[in-house]
Amino acid sequence: MAQPHDLPFSVDEYRSRVAKVQAEMARRGIDVLMINHLENIYYLSGYRTIGYYSFMALFVPPSGDPVHLCRLIEKTVLQGSSWIDDMDLYPDTERGLDAALRLIKSRKWDRLRIGIDKSAWYLTIDDFEKLQAALPQAKWVDSSLLVENMRLIKSPAEQAYSRKAGKAASEGMRSALAALRAGITEDDLMAAAYQGLFRMHSEYPGLPPLINSGVRHTMAHAMAEGNPVRQGDAVYFEIGASIKRYHAATLRIGYVGTPPKLFLDLTDLCRRSLDAGLKQMKPGNPAEAVDAAARKVIADAGYGDKFRHKAGYSIGIALPPDWSEARTMMLRGGEKRPLQPGMVYHFLPAVFEYKEYGVGLSETVLITENGHEILTDVEQKLFVVK
Amino acid sequence: MAQPHDLPFSVDEYRSRVAKVQAEMARRGIDVLMINHLENIYYLSGYRTIGYYSFMALFVPPSGDPVHLCRLIEKTVLQGSSWIDDMDLYPDTERGLDAALRLIKSRKWDRLRIGIDKSAWYLTIDDFEKLQAALPQAKWVDSSLLVENMRLIKSPAEQAYSRKAGKAASEGMRSALAALRAGITEDDLMAAAYQGLFRMHSEYPGLPPLINSGVRHTMAHAMAEGNPVRQGDAVYFEIGASIKRYHAATLRIGYVGTPPKLFLDLTDLCRRSLDAGLKQMKPGNPAEAVDAAARKVIADAGYGDKFRHKAGYSIGIALPPDWSEARTMMLRGGEKRPLQPGMVYHFLPAVFEYKEYGVGLSETVLITENGHEILTDVEQKLFVVK
Repeated sequence: MAQPHDLPFSVDEYRSRVAKVQAEMARRGIDVLMINHLENIYYLSGYRTIGYYSFMALFVPPSGDPVHLCRLIEKTVLQGSSWIDDMDLYPDTERGLDAALRLIKSRKWDRLRIGIDKSAWYLTIDDFEKLQAALPQAKWVDSSLLVENMRLIKSPAEQAYSRKAGKAASEGMRSALAALRAGITEDDLMAAAYQGLFRMHSEYPGLPPLINSGVRHTMAHAMAEGNPVRQGDAVYFEIGASIKRYHAATLRIGYVGTPPKLFLDLTDLCRRSLDAGLKQMKPGNPAEAVDAAARKVIADAGYGDKFRHKAGYSIGIALPPDWSEARTMMLRGGEKRPLQPGMVYHFLPAVFEYKEYGVGLSETVLITENGHEILTDVEQKLFVVK
Repeated sequence: MAQPHDLPFSVDEYRSRVAKVQAEMARRGIDVLMINHLENIYYLSGYRTIGYYSFMALFVPPSGDPVHLCRLIEKTVLQGSSWIDDMDLYPDTERGLDAALRLIKSRKWDRLRIGIDKSAWYLTIDDFEKLQAALPQAKWVDSSLLVENMRLIKSPAEQAYSRKAGKAASEGMRSALAALRAGITEDDLMAAAYQGLFRMHSEYPGLPPLINSGVRHTMAHAMAEGNPVRQGDAVYFEIGASIKRYHAATLRIGYVGTPPKLFLDLTDLCRRSLDAGLKQMKPGNPAEAVDAAARKVIADAGYGDKFRHKAGYSIGIALPPDWSEARTMMLRGGEKRPLQPGMVYHFLPAVFEYKEYGVGLSETVLITENGHEILTDVEQKLFVVK
């Protein structure tokens, strides 16, 4: 038995997750599942590393424990973080895909029905073409989102991490907002955000704190680059935290000086949009109802074409370059699946126009048996510093 | 003409890069190139965003300016960061791949030879199968690493950013090392590292500061999780910085208390390994010579099987989840391409054994006309705090 230094969940919980995956594999006629996204590997094993930019896989057989395939340099972090003993390691002079072929053949899986995630980033077109060429007898079954769908509903132990992440994201936000004043830079605000995050034990989040000042606050998705904060600048703050890779995030806007009426009005608009959407956040409602309610408020005020994104997305286990589970489920038009207790969403109405404004408000929200619980807790207002 | 808020290079430099890509396309018989990795899109356009977790592309025609395809929410950050006017935006109710099909057809590219990067993460197997099905007349040409290979040799303007990144990474390291003492946690060291990084205007780097204490310092690639730093703990520090997305990184080990002789010996071993490799870092030498020289020192001392990774990798433009250009070129056995002036490498000999030790030393190194220039500048020693 492996002796990991620290497991986020009990081995029993991991084994029950693996058993669920194996049951779903049987249902879909998959003999062996190859998992390439570390979020999914982590969900089943505890293994976490920065090294997922190199080829890695967890192979799940029809029964029994899975096996890790990783670069040799991953050995110590595998030993220290996964409950799974069985690991196959390849040196940097070998291609990861060749190592996978070797493993598949040595375990006599090369004539089986192998599940692969065709929508995964970390199994490339080139990898798949090589697999097909080298294993002509294998059958390839698309297993996209098989594990992701299981992650949508968080267990009580997972919800506890999400709650802590909500507190950490809020502390990161408060710490950054408290540092806001004319004469500093985005750099200073980034440092302040991280101080708040680390004070509450956040790990490196899936996305950086988004902190952008002046013209750049109108550029949705820009990254801080050390620009100055001047009198009369609005500043965009979107800050997420990670606790055992479970994420929560929140969005607020700051203003240095006397804000134009437009910024106060748009903040009020986003708050009303948020309220309208929150009313829809209860079990049984289709996810798109949240988007529709939030969007109607903003459209009715004449800003519909400035609300350019889906209203929100599932949020949970994540690694850079994202903190969302948007691949799995979003709060957007057309998403008719119902909200269910244990789901967690980052819900973020916002409006943007280049060089004019970027205003929004967001919360991370857990769906409960009776409605919802907001996990982030920063005051909902425009944060004005004179 | 677009009016970006801030361009890292002149429009002339961008146009000359595009022209080089178009010349290479002509050489390979590619009519239109679809680029999906933001590092490559950024290299040609200046466009930078956190939003590359959603489908995006830059299409490069045989002549004339490229065109962006992105989610609608990217509009403002595109306007603010790219010199390219032409942009096609899709709403969150449309699939990105469907938008790409629409664009390809509307520009009458659907019977041409289209270059795609089959080793790219952000063009999935599923995407490619849909492209092939929807555009049966198109020919698909693998353009893997076409742009990446051009990025290997940095221009003087790019080298200036790499140099600044080297200074910022070093300041992050010094700031973290200065905070080291018993009784604090990895969180405190992370906050200190970021303070140093942001003081020198680093952006969010492609990887987090790797700061791991105690048993976890032996787990290569672990991420900080707030563990305590106690008397008798070694601490692993690997810290990178980003300036206009150009990266540099450095690795040092700290020790709280009186270090066992083994840690001093291994530090000395890694320093000798580093020296041996640096002697090989000059134009014309094959990249593998650096790895071989560094590895020989460590193998001769009996630690060859603990040096589990390639000796280094090209480092430059990067976005999470990596700061390397390892996909393009590494310092590893079998890499016979020569080092050339303008290349930048992160060179990191290190040895790991779970629960026993993790020791290494690294520098970021620019290859020059006459040899090399080390861009990071932290003292090469074991940092002992009593």
